[in-house]
Amino acid sequence: MNIKPLGDRVVIKTLAQEEKTKSGIVLPDTAKEKPQQGEVLAVGTGKTLENGQKVPLEVKVGDKVIFSKYAGTEIKIDGQEVMILNERDILAII
Amino acid sequence: MNIKPLGDRVVIKTLAQEEKTKSGIVLPDTAKEKPQQGEVLAVGTGKTLENGQKVPLEVKVGDKVIFSKYAGTEIKIDGQEVMILNERDILAII
Amino acid sequence: MNIKPLGDRVVIKTLAQEEKTKSGIVLPDTAKEKPQQGEVLAVGTGKTLENGQKVPLEVKVGDKVIFSKYAGTEIKIDGQEVMILNERDILAII
Amino acid sequence: MNIKPLGDRVVIKTLAQEEKTKSGIVLPDTAKEKPQQGEVLAVGTGKTLENGQKVPLEVKVGDKVIFSKYAGTEIKIDGQEVMILNERDILAII
Amino acid sequence: MNIKPLGDRVVIKTLAQEEKTKSGIVLPDTAKEKPQQGEVLAVGTGKTLENGQKVPLEVKVGDKVIFSKYAGTEIKIDGQEVMILNERDILAII
Amino acid sequence: MNIKPLGDRVVIKTLAQEEKTKSGIVLPDTAKEKPQQGEVLAVGTGKTLENGQKVPLEVKVGDKVIFSKYAGTEIKIDGQEVMILNERDILAII
Amino acid sequence: MNIKPLGDRVVIKTLAQEEKTKSGIVLPDTAKEKPQQGEVLAVGTGKTLENGQKVPLEVKVGDKVIFSKYAGTEIKIDGQEVMILNERDILAII
Repeated sequence: MNIKPLGDRVVIKTLAQEEKTKSGIVLPDTAKEKPQQGEVLAVGTGKTLENGQKVPLEVKVGDKVIFSKYAGTEIKIDGQEVMILNERDILAII
Repeated sequence: MNIKPLGDRVVIKTLAQEEKTKSGIVLPDTAKEKPQQGEVLAVGTGKTLENGQKVPLEVKVGDKVIFSKYAGTEIKIDGQEVMILNERDILAII
Repeated sequence: MNIKPLGDRVVIKTLAQEEKTKSGIVLPDTAKEKPQQGEVLAVGTGKTLENGQKVPLEVKVGDKVIFSKYAGTEIKIDGQEVMILNERDILAII
Repeated sequence: MNIKPLGDRVVIKTLAQEEKTKSGIVLPDTAKEKPQQGEVLAVGTGKTLENGQKVPLEVKVGDKVIFSKYAGTEIKIDGQEVMILNERDILAII
Repeated sequence: MNIKPLGDRVVIKTLAQEEKTKSGIVLPDTAKEKPQQGEVLAVGTGKTLENGQKVPLEVKVGDKVIFSKYAGTEIKIDGQEVMILNERDILAII
Repeated sequence: MNIKPLGDRVVIKTLAQEEKTKSGIVLPDTAKEKPQQGEVLAVGTGKTLENGQKVPLEVKVGDKVIFSKYAGTEIKIDGQEVMILNERDILAII
Repeated sequence: MNIKPLGDRVVIKTLAQEEKTKSGIVLPDTAKEKPQQGEVLAVGTGKTLENGQKVPLEVKVGDKVIFSKYAGTEIKIDGQEVMILNERDILAII
């Protein structure tokens, strides 16, 4: 995919509901922050600290992650729905 | 458990009401911040300071902790309810 | 007491109303921030500064302190009501 | 174009709706943050960190970018509508 | 007085209305922030900066100061009304 | 002009509506942040960073700039309307 | 005047409406932030940065300044109305 997120941003492909059950993780609809599963498609160059140091992201392309459904911005690329969000909105790698 | 929380996040297994009484600690329903007991299942790699230093978490896998019921995000893994929260939402190790 | 508060948190045993009069300090009910007396039962390992330095707490176990009644989280251990709060919510050692 | 954005600001030419479809990216009207495509016309000298270091921008003139429609300030130069916004409001280079 | 304020906190004895007139300073009731006069009874050990340095307070015991009436917490010690407040809520030494 | 703005402040002479058209830039009334053109009359000594370093301003006397109409404070000097605003409220040099 | 403002605070004597006209500066009543003229009577020792460095104030005793009418605290000394405010609320030296 030809998209380069800036800074500490990440592009994520949203995973369908049925894939979640397969991996044994259920994310209930009633959850307060609406966590959702996805796969990392692209990562930014990292976050710049106040001392000028660039910190690379913890997630890498291909990681399956849990993120908050309400974080980030939704766009579509070639019919595929993707999310652009900050790495801090990703809760965990699964 | 195959889950890696990011940064200073922690995965916690919620402990049932009866376990609380056994350890001599009672967390009353009327408490303002609704503290709750749990056991640490996984910890993140730590918090990155503005000087680039990575600070490992104070809690480790297996620790019994008290945390605020309203903090974090609830998910289920193989039928087990777990919480993903920031270490700063953990009040104490018990 | 077998409880280890995290970071700059402190565990405090609330002192009864009559003890306050004995020490010559009266904390009127009408006070805006509802200050309260207590005794420090346990202290955290300290606060981590942005340069990675760990700053130990100013209060130590056994100190009698004044703190804001509305700060922190109330729990009970073996029938004893205790508070877990941040050191910054402690006003003074008395 | 004779315009020099200050600091970490960027001047962007808004791209028309039809150009979006050509590149295979569709930005649906229903998106919460109303992302929009554009082309970078001018970039500021960078962001000054608290240690005095100047960090150059990640985007450069000519980059096609996605940004939030609600960010920034709209002006017109010679009939051409452009946006002045902070680099942090740019989500990705496409 | 046997009270040790923490950090950059200060204990202040409120001065009565008539003392104010004597020193030539009148603090009108209509003032927006309700400034008030007092005498410093005890000072904290200072403020800890992010580089770990401890900065001692500018005020010292015995100083007459002007502070905002709405800042801080009111307690009584042996019938004497005192205030515990942050040094930043003290406007000036008079 | 005998006025020295403090820190990172700038004094700006507001340019009339017709001058804008001449330079080819039109700032529509419907713009959300109401950008406006002006000429820099005086600049402050710069911004002091947390490391004590003084960063001089990017704009200099004589620069034509675009700034937000709602930023800053309006005063009149010898009948001339000027604005005092922070450099961060200036969007670009034109 | 026997008053020492703390930190980066400044004591200012408010100048009457007619003095403003004399210096050629008119501060209209309709101005949004209600700027006002004054003369600096006393200055604090400066602002302490996070690296422990003390930065002296830019204004000095005797400076005529423009400040926001709504900033600071009004007190009276020997019948003279003065303001105590932070240096950051002073817009310019005139």
